[in-house]
Amino acid sequence: MKNDQYYMNLALELAASAKGHTNPNPLVGAVLVKGGVIVGTGLHRKAGEPHAEVHAFNMAGEHAQGATLYVTLEPCSHYGKTPPCAKQVVESGVARVVVATVDPNPSVAGRGIRMIQEAGIEVEVGVQENEAKFLNKRFMHNMIKGLPYVRSKFAMTLDGKIATYSGHSQWISGEESRADVHELRNEVDGILVGVGTVIKDNPALTTRLQNGQKGKNPTRIIMDRQLRTPVDAQITNREIARTIIVTAKGNEQLIAKYEGVDFLFVDVVHGQLDLQQTLEMLYKEGITDLLVEGGGTINASFLRANLIDEYIVYIAPKVLGGKDSIAPFTGENVDTIDEAVELTFGEVEKFGHDLRVLAYPKKD
Amino acid sequence: MKNDQYYMNLALELAASAKGHTNPNPLVGAVLVKGGVIVGTGLHRKAGEPHAEVHAFNMAGEHAQGATLYVTLEPCSHYGKTPPCAKQVVESGVARVVVATVDPNPSVAGRGIRMIQEAGIEVEVGVQENEAKFLNKRFMHNMIKGLPYVRSKFAMTLDGKIATYSGHSQWISGEESRADVHELRNEVDGILVGVGTVIKDNPALTTRLQNGQKGKNPTRIIMDRQLRTPVDAQITNREIARTIIVTAKGNEQLIAKYEGVDFLFVDVVHGQLDLQQTLEMLYKEGITDLLVEGGGTINASFLRANLIDEYIVYIAPKVLGGKDSIAPFTGENVDTIDEAVELTFGEVEKFGHDLRVLAYPKKD
Repeated sequence: MKNDQYYMNLALELAASAKGHTNPNPLVGAVLVKGGVIVGTGLHRKAGEPHAEVHAFNMAGEHAQGATLYVTLEPCSHYGKTPPCAKQVVESGVARVVVATVDPNPSVAGRGIRMIQEAGIEVEVGVQENEAKFLNKRFMHNMIKGLPYVRSKFAMTLDGKIATYSGHSQWISGEESRADVHELRNEVDGILVGVGTVIKDNPALTTRLQNGQKGKNPTRIIMDRQLRTPVDAQITNREIARTIIVTAKGNEQLIAKYEGVDFLFVDVVHGQLDLQQTLEMLYKEGITDLLVEGGGTINASFLRANLIDEYIVYIAPKVLGGKDSIAPFTGENVDTIDEAVELTFGEVEKFGHDLRVLAYPKKD
Repeated sequence: MKNDQYYMNLALELAASAKGHTNPNPLVGAVLVKGGVIVGTGLHRKAGEPHAEVHAFNMAGEHAQGATLYVTLEPCSHYGKTPPCAKQVVESGVARVVVATVDPNPSVAGRGIRMIQEAGIEVEVGVQENEAKFLNKRFMHNMIKGLPYVRSKFAMTLDGKIATYSGHSQWISGEESRADVHELRNEVDGILVGVGTVIKDNPALTTRLQNGQKGKNPTRIIMDRQLRTPVDAQITNREIARTIIVTAKGNEQLIAKYEGVDFLFVDVVHGQLDLQQTLEMLYKEGITDLLVEGGGTINASFLRANLIDEYIVYIAPKVLGGKDSIAPFTGENVDTIDEAVELTFGEVEKFGHDLRVLAYPKKD
């Protein structure tokens, strides 16, 4: 017997297939079921395109009448790029609506559900709710905090080293892990590094997918307090992708030498660029999903400011040793283990010979 | 249809149940099958007790006549604590013998199989051979190298730290991981630490099992070039377990102050106790399975000497950071990633909130 959970999982699967393409919108899937037959399916593919419910109603046509709608996120109640879905739900003649989770967007936040209930349609909320929230963790975070969802990514040896003392790091992880990083770059809006990395490695930080697929280049963001980014650095090539240099307030006069690069000016706190302010500004610039590929210092600053929302760690089957080999997080010393940031492990998967471990800040 | 593989896996399962109890002997399981019915089963439980085949024959009695014997290791051919199993196999009247792998023990090494074949009994070798070798990796290593099987164990945070700059490390791993370490201590013959750990933590290094089960305390081994072990250190208490201090040749006159402690005197090479020599001596002292719980320096010495046969890494869902936090391996710096020791990941398992990752040196 196929139950609510079954159909909601199907809707979640549809939604997940658009991962990375819907920003700043959430991932949403919808399934219409009547008499045990699926009469409509849909998903939100891209910002600006129809919402999931619209596709499902289009497919179902008159079969929507008396059907049950499964939708992974509360139908919207506001006129945005498309008319409110809640209105279309009411007009469709469905008999019942099952919603995985409420939309935390302040301009929805229960209004969509109320609109449907007030039309006399039965609404059930909370089926596969945790799964739906996890799928849209980026969107939920954006709506609740007004900040980009920050992912810290690094590749290390089994003894926790990201480079030798001299900075040599090619290659710690294998081909499959590196290919996965490019998938990740294709998914995010922004990729952030410290100016040290720019000077040392001169990276392009673009997306190179396998099988010749064309990727989306994220905005490159450089944390550069003293404007040390070389004017001819690969990363400043605007033809490839947008570049934002985050620098200290007061440096406004010094930026003329850079062409085609955008600037954000933030406060300096304890000798470091204010990260909270940086993230607030980046969010306003449309960065909803940020990949931090920093060295140990940048990583430690994000860590200590409690601004990392996800850890993506590739562990290579290697032991490096070496008393001055470089660790993924450096920064200020801590006295006791109790001062460590506590996480919860997520998925652990093999990528070629490497392990990829996902982790999230522990919720209290 | 149950085939050779099926019965051999069963024999391997029986063998594995005695893990840690058979040292210095291998783990062996045996199954006798006649007309699709299991007529005899056995395993080697403990050095000095009967071999697996003997238990199986005892159970089968006259049913052994015409049966097939599945045995995970070549039956022995020499008179040791028990008469040769190969002889009993011949006398039992079995029709066929299936062996997973040859016994590398120089006093067997194919002789057992030949003895059975020469009696006109069909012998097949190599069914589930890799599994059988993996199960007896400690024994295989002992026989082939004449050295203890060395396991390097450490608990680290997700960013590769085993302690804060000041050495604080309680607790990185959770209760389940720590309980697993005691299971491990119960399994090995020896546990090795540097004198630094003895001075700093004054550990007893004994086995404390859960549910009040009584454990076996391994021999405690301290690497102590300059004889800095405090005479009243917990670890020197002979009533709990045997203690061996490994120190430099020339220190023979200085040991009088220690009571009830055994000593090994080895050469000093590049300012460090010779590890190869240490292991050769420990093997002669009956240490077949050695757990290294060293700090970064000891670990690095074993690493650079290519003397680690297995890595047991507990990864806690924590990020510590701190520029001087302590890594699991320190020692001499290395220039490039190519100088890392390459491993192969084995089992990855959850222990409470932690991950336990097993790894082995990569075979060429």
